[in-house]
Amino acid sequence: MITSTSNARVKQLLQLRKKARERNAQDLFVVEGPKMYQETPPERIVQVCVSEKYYQKNQALFEGGGQVTVLSDRVFESVSDTRTPQGVLCIVRQYHYELPDLLCGDVPLIMALENLQDPGNLGTIVRMAEGAGATGILLGPGCVDIYNPKTIRSTMGSIYRVPFYYTDDLKRDLCVLRDRGVRWFAAHLEGSVPYDEESYVGSSGFLIGNESQGLTSEITAAADARIRIPMCGKVESLNAAIAASVLMYEANRQRRAVRF
Amino acid sequence: MITSTSNARVKQLLQLRKKARERNAQDLFVVEGPKMYQETPPERIVQVCVSEKYYQKNQALFEGGGQVTVLSDRVFESVSDTRTPQGVLCIVRQYHYELPDLLCGDVPLIMALENLQDPGNLGTIVRMAEGAGATGILLGPGCVDIYNPKTIRSTMGSIYRVPFYYTDDLKRDLCVLRDRGVRWFAAHLEGSVPYDEESYVGSSGFLIGNESQGLTSEITAAADARIRIPMCGKVESLNAAIAASVLMYEANRQRRAVRF
Repeated sequence: MITSTSNARVKQLLQLRKKARERNAQDLFVVEGPKMYQETPPERIVQVCVSEKYYQKNQALFEGGGQVTVLSDRVFESVSDTRTPQGVLCIVRQYHYELPDLLCGDVPLIMALENLQDPGNLGTIVRMAEGAGATGILLGPGCVDIYNPKTIRSTMGSIYRVPFYYTDDLKRDLCVLRDRGVRWFAAHLEGSVPYDEESYVGSSGFLIGNESQGLTSEITAAADARIRIPMCGKVESLNAAIAASVLMYEANRQRRAVRF
Repeated sequence: MITSTSNARVKQLLQLRKKARERNAQDLFVVEGPKMYQETPPERIVQVCVSEKYYQKNQALFEGGGQVTVLSDRVFESVSDTRTPQGVLCIVRQYHYELPDLLCGDVPLIMALENLQDPGNLGTIVRMAEGAGATGILLGPGCVDIYNPKTIRSTMGSIYRVPFYYTDDLKRDLCVLRDRGVRWFAAHLEGSVPYDEESYVGSSGFLIGNESQGLTSEITAAADARIRIPMCGKVESLNAAIAASVLMYEANRQRRAVRF
C-alpha cells in the first residue's frame, strides 16, 4: 500500500491529472469513479488504483485479475480530482484516431469545434454526440484537452466510443472532409437560416465556436451554410453544449423521419 | 464604507445567499455581477452593494441615482458567491406569480419540474425556456430554490422575464392547467413515443423529473402522453437541462413551421 505522497506513482497521477502536456508525453490519461472504471475497455487499462477503504469493501472485484495499487485513503484523496473521491481511478492509454475515422457509420455527422474552452462543455458534447448518433468530433487548435479530468467525467463513458481528432489546421481539414462529401453548417448568431430549414439527412457537420466569441470569421467563411438557432425574448446566445445538442438532435430527428 | 463582516447588512447578505428560508422570510434574493445588475428591473432593487475597487472605477454609474452601499474589498469577497467576485451585487425583491400567469402568451408552453435538484440545471432551464419561447415554469415540491445564487447566475437574467410558480401539489395543478387546455407530456426513459412524433402546436407542457430518478410514477401517470428522446450508442440518459432544451426547441420548431 502506498502511504506517501512522494511515491513515484502518486506523482505520476498528479501530473496526469493536472497537465495536458504530461498526458500527451506519456500517452496516458486518468479516469475516476466506479462508473468510469466499469466503462473502460479492459485492454486499455494500464493501472487501477484504489483507496484502502474501497479495496476493503470491493476486494472480490480484484481477486485473480490484474494488478491493482492500493493507496491509503489520505493519499488517494490527494490524487483525486473530485471533492468526494469514490475510491477508484485508472490510468488509461490514449486513443489515436485518424481524420477518416470521423466518417465511420452509415452517414457521417461530425461536430467540429473551434476554440472550445470549457472542459464540461466538451465532455457534454462528446456524450450528446454519442446519444444523437454523431460519428465523430473534430477539434481545432485552441480547444480544451479532451483528456482533462472534468471533460472525461462529463462524457460519462462516451469518450471510449466517439472517435475524435485534434487538427492543427481546422480550415484545411474541413476542406478534406468536404471533399469526402461532408456539408458544413456554421452555428452563428447571425446565421441567415433557422437551423431547422436545412437538411442534415446527407453527410453533415456542425461548426461550433468559442463560448464567448463564437466562430472566427475565417472558419465561418469555410462553411457551406450559416445557421442560427432562433431565440425568443432577450436571450442573446445559448450555451455551446446546449446549442450543439439542439443541432445534433435536429439531425437525428430528420434522419429518423427519412428512415420510416 | 462597511469594513467589518459583523455589520448587519453583511450578515443579511450572507443569510440571503445561503438560506432559502431566509430569502423567503425576507421576500428578497441576491444577484451578483455587472451583467445581472444591468438586467435587474430598477423598481425591484432594494439595495446595491459594491466593492471599494468597483466603486472607484465606476463612480459615474452611481452619481445622483439611488443608494449604494460600499463594502471594503475584503468584506465584499466574504459575501460573494463566486471565486472571482466582480464587485457588484444587489438585493432584489422576490416575484409572486400565480398559477394562471404561466399561461400568458399566444399559446402556452410550460415546463413542469419534479424534484429537480441541481441549481445550475434549473437556471439553464429558465434561460432556455425564455429562448425557446416557453410561457412559464411550474415547480413541484422538492425542487431546488429558484433564488439559489447558482440558479440565478445560470439564468443570465431570464429569471426576470419567465413566470414561475412553486406548487405544493404538483398533481393537482397539472389537472388545473389541463382544464385550461394544457396537454402534458412526460419525458420518460421508457416513453412510448419519440418526442418528435407528438404535436406541441397547441397548449403544451413538458414534465421533467429528478436528475437521477426521473419522474415519479404518480406524476408520470398524471400526464397525457409519455415521450422519450431516442438515444444511440450506450447513452442511457440525458442531462435534465439538455433534455428540456431539446424538447422546448422541438415545440419552438413545430410552432414556427405552422406559422409560415
